[in-house]
Amino acid sequence: MTTGSPLLYEQVASLVERQITSGALRVHDRIPSVRAMSRSAQVSAATVVQAYVDLERRGLIEARPKSGYYVRLRRHERLPLPRVRRMQPAKPRGVAASVLDVVREAIERTDIVHLNLTMSPASKSPNQRLNALIRAELRAHPNHAGEVLLPPGDLELRRQIARRCTLAGSPADPDDIVITGGTMDAITLALTSLCRPGDAVLVESPTYFGLLQAIEHLGLRVVEVPNHPGAGIDPDAVRVAVETQKIAAAVLMPNFNNPAGTLTGIDAKRQLTATLGDAGIPIIEDDIYGDLAFGPERPCSLRRFDRQGQVISCGSVSKTIALGYRVGWAISPRWAADLQRAKFYSSVAAPTLQQRVLARYYASGGYDRFLTRLRRGLAATAEHFLDTIAVHFPDGTRVTPPAGGMALWIELPARIDALELFRTALASRIGIMPGLVFSAKADYRHYIRLSFGVGWTDEVATALQRLGALARAAAAAG
Amino acid sequence: MTTGSPLLYEQVASLVERQITSGALRVHDRIPSVRAMSRSAQVSAATVVQAYVDLERRGLIEARPKSGYYVRLRRHERLPLPRVRRMQPAKPRGVAASVLDVVREAIERTDIVHLNLTMSPASKSPNQRLNALIRAELRAHPNHAGEVLLPPGDLELRRQIARRCTLAGSPADPDDIVITGGTMDAITLALTSLCRPGDAVLVESPTYFGLLQAIEHLGLRVVEVPNHPGAGIDPDAVRVAVETQKIAAAVLMPNFNNPAGTLTGIDAKRQLTATLGDAGIPIIEDDIYGDLAFGPERPCSLRRFDRQGQVISCGSVSKTIALGYRVGWAISPRWAADLQRAKFYSSVAAPTLQQRVLARYYASGGYDRFLTRLRRGLAATAEHFLDTIAVHFPDGTRVTPPAGGMALWIELPARIDALELFRTALASRIGIMPGLVFSAKADYRHYIRLSFGVGWTDEVATALQRLGALARAAAAAG
Repeated sequence: MTTGSPLLYEQVASLVERQITSGALRVHDRIPSVRAMSRSAQVSAATVVQAYVDLERRGLIEARPKSGYYVRLRRHERLPLPRVRRMQPAKPRGVAASVLDVVREAIERTDIVHLNLTMSPASKSPNQRLNALIRAELRAHPNHAGEVLLPPGDLELRRQIARRCTLAGSPADPDDIVITGGTMDAITLALTSLCRPGDAVLVESPTYFGLLQAIEHLGLRVVEVPNHPGAGIDPDAVRVAVETQKIAAAVLMPNFNNPAGTLTGIDAKRQLTATLGDAGIPIIEDDIYGDLAFGPERPCSLRRFDRQGQVISCGSVSKTIALGYRVGWAISPRWAADLQRAKFYSSVAAPTLQQRVLARYYASGGYDRFLTRLRRGLAATAEHFLDTIAVHFPDGTRVTPPAGGMALWIELPARIDALELFRTALASRIGIMPGLVFSAKADYRHYIRLSFGVGWTDEVATALQRLGALARAAAAAG
Repeated sequence: MTTGSPLLYEQVASLVERQITSGALRVHDRIPSVRAMSRSAQVSAATVVQAYVDLERRGLIEARPKSGYYVRLRRHERLPLPRVRRMQPAKPRGVAASVLDVVREAIERTDIVHLNLTMSPASKSPNQRLNALIRAELRAHPNHAGEVLLPPGDLELRRQIARRCTLAGSPADPDDIVITGGTMDAITLALTSLCRPGDAVLVESPTYFGLLQAIEHLGLRVVEVPNHPGAGIDPDAVRVAVETQKIAAAVLMPNFNNPAGTLTGIDAKRQLTATLGDAGIPIIEDDIYGDLAFGPERPCSLRRFDRQGQVISCGSVSKTIALGYRVGWAISPRWAADLQRAKFYSSVAAPTLQQRVLARYYASGGYDRFLTRLRRGLAATAEHFLDTIAVHFPDGTRVTPPAGGMALWIELPARIDALELFRTALASRIGIMPGLVFSAKADYRHYIRLSFGVGWTDEVATALQRLGALARAAAAAG
């Protein structure tokens, strides 16, 4: 099976999708009948039906009894983006810890609907394949328990990661890759290698709350630059920050920022990489969501624009196939040796079995096909979320439609206290993330992050509607 | 199978061993004939033979043709201990990095005899058992790849660890245990939780080189107190250090210090725990070798003497059954919540599959029987190493006979440059550890650490003899 080449029905679906997104087919237009499409695309009627069912599942078209398929009104198209926030170049300051423990505890509740976890249900992982590869690995290396794969880690896995980097347009050498215990482990190792305590680290606002806590835990400070709704990291703000402040490193998430879901554009990526690179500031790229684009192409890493070797790109399989494996990587020609040392001295190595199993999984093909399914599923679920929010959330709600990943960043009416909503929702057995944890200044007090990794089920739909009702009540009371 | 109760032949072997160590049987004494012992111990002749073969394998007795078994002269009994080093209370100072990369690279060479690795050969792990448990776990949790066990980690594993703590005389509550990615991960998390950059950390001299590097990597400094040959950590030196310097935390290895192999006695343990506890200084105990006692009892953790809740005891299965699993733990009633946070924010979690498999392994019994075999094997290999060193190493060589663990700490004649010997040995495809890496001051320039985890084979014996010849040549040339 060649990875990545679409099946026939997918080609037909893409054809229709392009007509919809280009405007050739508009809302309520009837799309070609199965017979007509079968003839014009020269595929079987069964293939066309499969394509249309897929498009319907993804919320792009709808069947009308005895009439055929029509382009569907996506209700969320009337939802505005969150407002662009004016942000003064932030002075470095300590990260506030505040309510984080409560938020973290909600992650582990087993009795709630998890709109607070940026992960897919475990059943969605390619479990049969992975478990078959584990069994094969037990036969190939029965003594794996006593074997350690010291940093930089398993060579075959590094080769496979390098191969994927090359396919994604940013070639890497296996020698530049260091295997870690996940993306956050890679970022922590990079931060401890590059920064001295008290140093300032450039981050986006909003950004992943765990990153802010890791920075705080290491005795570092943060400088925030805005990630704008729909646009991504602001390269001008990066330039101003670099010109006005002493910055030891940047940690950026240009591909589907968590929580904002935005994809930073090519030009902005090029600009900010040059700005930071010219200033000699290392860029730690958190690329954990890069494989989860809703569009046809995987967005590029900042490494593509890295003329000075300043970028350390960090990733893992945690958001795609194996959150429980605890394997990730850092890629950097310049700092690979430092990262190896840091990994060895802080925690010795990543687990042996999983390194080898992932190498086998990549090598045996099928990851791209799996990703295609996963990304389509996520994109479809995001549509459902947006539609439900458009109908059920209070007036004044603003949302960034995500370009990939699993997060929806929602600006509620300003009079809503999102931390209070978090507590009310939890009492109704619904987990959400209050916005204030995604900034060192805790200034997203009327924002929430919802994750649609959970998938679209009746239970999720009901929970989301209920959350909308709670938000409306809060807006009315506020 | 009840864990820990010795087999019949082991009981007989112990009987003879006690007579030898007590002096009731002396060197060259004939030990009772098989028939006599069979009668007096009321066991079969076959059992006695098994016991005597075991004692012979362990180097305690020797067979003389047509005459019977005799107590063997252990040649190393003429080897003196390394000298006690006078050590001024050390001023905090940075850790020298120097030749560490070369030493670390030697760890990964596949073409040398590894006297430089404190690990057992992978084939010695209980691989069949562990792999069977993995297969069982794949059936019980087929979706494990997508499941994450967030800190504090798998409850059943924490229960099993707590149970073992209680059996070893230092009860623990599962809630006080945080699962980590190995012992060093636990120590790093404790250090980042308890210390601010620039702080001074009390360590032993000598101590594990990776610990010194981790401390350096975190921007901390060290204060060294001596671990005396044969005696262990000096509680008076601890008291003086506490009285004269500001110390943020101590990292101590009272059970089989690596590299010295010494077991710190009960009284010293009690004293130093009280001294540090009364001064409000947290004690991070590295108990990674605690299960590898050569004597009949597992030595106790400092937790037994911890009146103020100051001890964080760190351990793993890396030196016993599963170096490649990357699972360890930290135990602390007081700081468990901080350690959970630190683990979550720095690297999220330990691998799911291995946590559950270890819980199954502990629960299903047999670990203690495995340990008994492993410890006897290590003790026997240590004897062979010591005997060979006594014969083949230059005059003036001094060694601490280890009480457990896998390390031999060897003082060579002062005119030998151990780093030079490391290089010469590596050229002869023999890996050793130069002593200077085991101190922040690099002042063990004529010391080496050999690991006997490798086991006793012809290849190892030849390498050790060759190393002795190289050392003799270096002593003659120096």
